[in-house]
Amino acid sequence: MRYAVLAAGKRVRPILCLASCELVGGKENAAMPAACAVEMIHTMSLIKDDLPCMDNDDLRRGKPTTHKVYGEGVAILSGGALLSLAFEHMTTAEISPEKMVWSVRELARSIGTRGLVAGQAKDISSEGLDLNKVGLEHLEFIHVHKTAVLLETAAVLGAIIGGGTNEEIESVRKFARCIGLLFQVVDDILDETKSSEELGKTAGKDQLLGKLTYPKLMGLEKSKEFVKRLTRDARQHLQGFSSEKVAPLVALTNFIANRNN
Amino acid sequence: MRYAVLAAGKRVRPILCLASCELVGGKENAAMPAACAVEMIHTMSLIKDDLPCMDNDDLRRGKPTTHKVYGEGVAILSGGALLSLAFEHMTTAEISPEKMVWSVRELARSIGTRGLVAGQAKDISSEGLDLNKVGLEHLEFIHVHKTAVLLETAAVLGAIIGGGTNEEIESVRKFARCIGLLFQVVDDILDETKSSEELGKTAGKDQLLGKLTYPKLMGLEKSKEFVKRLTRDARQHLQGFSSEKVAPLVALTNFIANRNN
Repeated sequence: MRYAVLAAGKRVRPILCLASCELVGGKENAAMPAACAVEMIHTMSLIKDDLPCMDNDDLRRGKPTTHKVYGEGVAILSGGALLSLAFEHMTTAEISPEKMVWSVRELARSIGTRGLVAGQAKDISSEGLDLNKVGLEHLEFIHVHKTAVLLETAAVLGAIIGGGTNEEIESVRKFARCIGLLFQVVDDILDETKSSEELGKTAGKDQLLGKLTYPKLMGLEKSKEFVKRLTRDARQHLQGFSSEKVAPLVALTNFIANRNN
Repeated sequence: MRYAVLAAGKRVRPILCLASCELVGGKENAAMPAACAVEMIHTMSLIKDDLPCMDNDDLRRGKPTTHKVYGEGVAILSGGALLSLAFEHMTTAEISPEKMVWSVRELARSIGTRGLVAGQAKDISSEGLDLNKVGLEHLEFIHVHKTAVLLETAAVLGAIIGGGTNEEIESVRKFARCIGLLFQVVDDILDETKSSEELGKTAGKDQLLGKLTYPKLMGLEKSKEFVKRLTRDARQHLQGFSSEKVAPLVALTNFIANRNN
């Protein structure tokens, strides 16, 4: 569990959670358990994605994948333990029991058949499909569920814990949805244009597995234009907040759009 | 998920949860979401136990195992989705937010490195060990974590939700600990003495895998005596409750001690 979680990840989800909490006037400390919980769940999904019966990947976050080091059995058990530790750790947050129950429910929803698992299931059943027969909708279903939902949940949890109004939570949710899609489009572009060394994970993997990607469906240039549009849209959802409070999330958006790994 | 959960299980954990709720004066309905959650988590652990990289089993609850029918990828994803659904479903219980947070924490603790996963990890690392070198303590560690902890949690959740006093919850916890051990000793005896057809799962599997069992460590006769002692101990922990309220749990104890599959 330590090996997988403490590897050099970008920590986009926890940062998003903490920054959303501060955006609505909350304190970073209050959102820390939720931020860690979301990173544990993200790591669990990476461990599973890399398994031989899934993407069968050897490299993650610049290191050999968990099952390569500890074997499949321990890797699968680590995933389950990280998932339950996420919920246990969430309950240590110093927030009202009402907010805690709300947060637990939001977190649980992002993992199962309406979240991560839906995306992963669709993903493994899509390998080798004829790209002429599946469209953008199919691709977006996978990405929304595999990536965007947990990013959205990270942000929403931050806003709930930070004491945001319903309207503020809704703005944060819309912002995070753009970020979620943005994150995946950039991921797809990087997989096609960067080396494994630069990425810290196996490059060109999507192509090899016959996976659907944005560059494949709309071409590299149009994908890059899409990145620009999503960046603009994301910022617009933050217009209701003061420019000072918005700064960390704008920086995060730019980081995601311009990252090299 | 449906295939695995709705197969013909004995439902010992949900029954224990509901009966413990009623024991302390609560209503069955209030504990139903927790009872279902515990069964989902139990099923998740069975799906994982049966995987090729774990016990590699073909038969469970009288049917082919989940990965045999749906493939390893879907089986692993189902496990994660059941785990998160358990927490999501828990939050639908009509109890105070305070009790809910307490319940979520108890549930989470029973799954990870101090619960199910600890037992499963020790279990897969114990196969083929020299029986002369490991003792009863080693065996009990596995069983307490793989089986007894979740049975205990089922009962404790019922008692919390039912509004039991701290003293009552403690009695229920002690009772459930006996039941947990009792359940596993009987399981080991059945694995050695019954056929796969009678059990609805592969018999003689423990022997085949070189697994530690009570009959192997203390012999069949002493194991049967141990069953009698645990049955007696379990009943003693219920002495503080009225005989009428205790009836369902006594019946459950007898069912576990005398079951044939």
